[in-house]
Amino acid sequence: MTATDSGFRGLGFDVHATDGMARRGTLTTAHGTVETPAFMPVGTAGTVKGMMPGSVKTTGAQIILGNTYHLMLRPTAERVAQLGGLHRFMNWHGPILTDSGGFQVMSLSDLRKMSEDGVTFKSHLDGKRHHLTPERSMQIQHLLDSNVTMCLDECTAFPATHEVAEKSMKLSMRWAQRSRDAFVERPGYGLFGIVQGSVYPDLRAESVRALTDIGFDGYAVGGLAVGEGQQMMFDTLDVTTPLLPKDRPRYLMGVGKPSDIIGAVRRGIDMFDCVMPTRSGRTGQAFVRRGVLNIRNARHAHDDRPLDEKCGCPACRSYSRGYLHHLFKAGEMLGPMLLTWHNLSYYQDLMAELRRAIANGCFEERAAELEAQLLLGDIPATPDPLAGTPAAESDAKADGAADEEIHSVPVDL
Amino acid sequence: MTATDSGFRGLGFDVHATDGMARRGTLTTAHGTVETPAFMPVGTAGTVKGMMPGSVKTTGAQIILGNTYHLMLRPTAERVAQLGGLHRFMNWHGPILTDSGGFQVMSLSDLRKMSEDGVTFKSHLDGKRHHLTPERSMQIQHLLDSNVTMCLDECTAFPATHEVAEKSMKLSMRWAQRSRDAFVERPGYGLFGIVQGSVYPDLRAESVRALTDIGFDGYAVGGLAVGEGQQMMFDTLDVTTPLLPKDRPRYLMGVGKPSDIIGAVRRGIDMFDCVMPTRSGRTGQAFVRRGVLNIRNARHAHDDRPLDEKCGCPACRSYSRGYLHHLFKAGEMLGPMLLTWHNLSYYQDLMAELRRAIANGCFEERAAELEAQLLLGDIPATPDPLAGTPAAESDAKADGAADEEIHSVPVDL
Repeated sequence: MTATDSGFRGLGFDVHATDGMARRGTLTTAHGTVETPAFMPVGTAGTVKGMMPGSVKTTGAQIILGNTYHLMLRPTAERVAQLGGLHRFMNWHGPILTDSGGFQVMSLSDLRKMSEDGVTFKSHLDGKRHHLTPERSMQIQHLLDSNVTMCLDECTAFPATHEVAEKSMKLSMRWAQRSRDAFVERPGYGLFGIVQGSVYPDLRAESVRALTDIGFDGYAVGGLAVGEGQQMMFDTLDVTTPLLPKDRPRYLMGVGKPSDIIGAVRRGIDMFDCVMPTRSGRTGQAFVRRGVLNIRNARHAHDDRPLDEKCGCPACRSYSRGYLHHLFKAGEMLGPMLLTWHNLSYYQDLMAELRRAIANGCFEERAAELEAQLLLGDIPATPDPLAGTPAAESDAKADGAADEEIHSVPVDL
Repeated sequence: MTATDSGFRGLGFDVHATDGMARRGTLTTAHGTVETPAFMPVGTAGTVKGMMPGSVKTTGAQIILGNTYHLMLRPTAERVAQLGGLHRFMNWHGPILTDSGGFQVMSLSDLRKMSEDGVTFKSHLDGKRHHLTPERSMQIQHLLDSNVTMCLDECTAFPATHEVAEKSMKLSMRWAQRSRDAFVERPGYGLFGIVQGSVYPDLRAESVRALTDIGFDGYAVGGLAVGEGQQMMFDTLDVTTPLLPKDRPRYLMGVGKPSDIIGAVRRGIDMFDCVMPTRSGRTGQAFVRRGVLNIRNARHAHDDRPLDEKCGCPACRSYSRGYLHHLFKAGEMLGPMLLTWHNLSYYQDLMAELRRAIANGCFEERAAELEAQLLLGDIPATPDPLAGTPAAESDAKADGAADEEIHSVPVDL
């Protein structure tokens, strides 16, 4: 018996409204509900970097993502379980989705060796050898107490020939069955299958058939945002999401930029995760309604305006661009903290806008407005009242060394 | 006419209770009141590192310290003024004390050259030459909008011969007069003189006479906590604080450890600042009621207990030692953030205890209890439920590299 046979045995999912392919829904887990379309901040090693969990919640986030690869290596899944599971360990009491570890084994570890059984790799931390199988991935995610467990799969590299993509997808489908068999069902917990098949419509369709035959609580689209470009990603969604069950959530893994998210919601995706708002925030890049800006740029040094006048986050409510610029120039921790907070708020505000638009039946209109606004570019700079004085010179002078500085001494301890 | 002639023209100060030499008072500034004895967190470059200003306030802090040296170099005092002054710039709307810049010129800059006029130095940031005089220090602190301005002085190095200490102290006294002359008086803003004279009672007495003849809103004891040791520091306070005006606040600069603070309050000091709780917090050292501990130690890896069961800070209320240990091992920003929050909370809790004890007339009894408790050492470790498994091994293995790791990559950007 699969989860989809039995209603709310695993994860609940209700679609409240649709507008074209776009869906407005609610995912129900043992640790609370998630309004969809939803963006999941990434909490790699048991923390959304630079944020208190309460602050993450304040941004509007209802679910976060944890990384199996990082946590299995340090502090280990057994340690997290001994300390009460990931929710208690990291003091995030809302829903948690964990990836399977497979993607990061490929991107971060050394000496990977794939076999039918699983993947053997050396830890990037201490070189110790590990073996990850579908069964072990399920066990780890169970120990972490993840609400949404992901099947172990092979994320097919891009580009891949049809032959390579087919072979890889079929391995992932066999692993999906083994993941399903090994997964321990509990109310409010569920398992998602992952559609593979690179950019080949026939392989994507075959992958969807294989997964729906097995039956999962939700379906992820994997193997995208790996270099194929936005158009090819959208094209692949166009041939994939229509095949997925309408009554189950759909998750586009590792995506993306704001315009990626708008385009994927348009194509029927319900869930997203991406390191972009958090990682970019730590290096001084801010996502604003008019696009992106780098707060380290000298033109912000004297600017008394907030990052984004429409944003209600603490970085925008209480600080000037000039101050945020100063924090990054001085290598102060508060800079990454505030920009992370802002970027996560921006992403959550965007999701809330999209949800409202779908509910109100005006998705296309609102999406077009948001997309147009993103292309405007940042507001024009203001003149520096101190131009020509040593104060203005001091900042311009320091500007050349700025990029190097943030990489060598990211935060002044 | 001096500030002490005119009551609340500069800064208000009321002593509500005394117990032996210890005093319970209130300092009144244009940006609010400060209950004394008070500990001022250090906000070097316009931020208490790793803390939102609202979080600093939550710990109980009512006044923070800013560093003239750092701010004059970056972003410059003129820039801070252009962006609304330090309170608005950094979003701390309570009282601010700034040092004069003199101490950090000595400890951080290159190619210092002292003269009667002031000190010439090269910035440690870009090698640019700067000249700091008493008049310029007053101007900078005025531009920053500091509530408590400190006179420019020469912090006499330790050890110093009587002759060297005398010459240095006398220069500081001439600079104190120039600082007083240059200081722009405003209601709720004031200027503190700084007693120098190394460990020589006659020089300390002469310095107090010189400063009280000029007249200041408060009196700092400088030139201590520079290597002389706790006993010699206490001995110097014993011959200095009794000479200071009873109706003005007394500030022991750059101090210190919890036991230093208890001993100095016992000797009549009202205000303190020190980087210890913030700097130590960033490297994993936690101040707890039973002394100090280093959360990076492997014995904390499995420990489900909080840092300090008596502490109400977020780090203690919501996280285990095991989790905090993990954050430091993984180089996660949240580790320094939480330990800084805890340490500042601990310091503020200590000050609140001392204030209560003075008000209740039981200072000596409570101080002795606190001092005895500080010597107990951390609570005994518990056995690791996973001992002998790969999970426990993983942590012990990583332990050797730990100290190196935090220095080279303090925070994972």
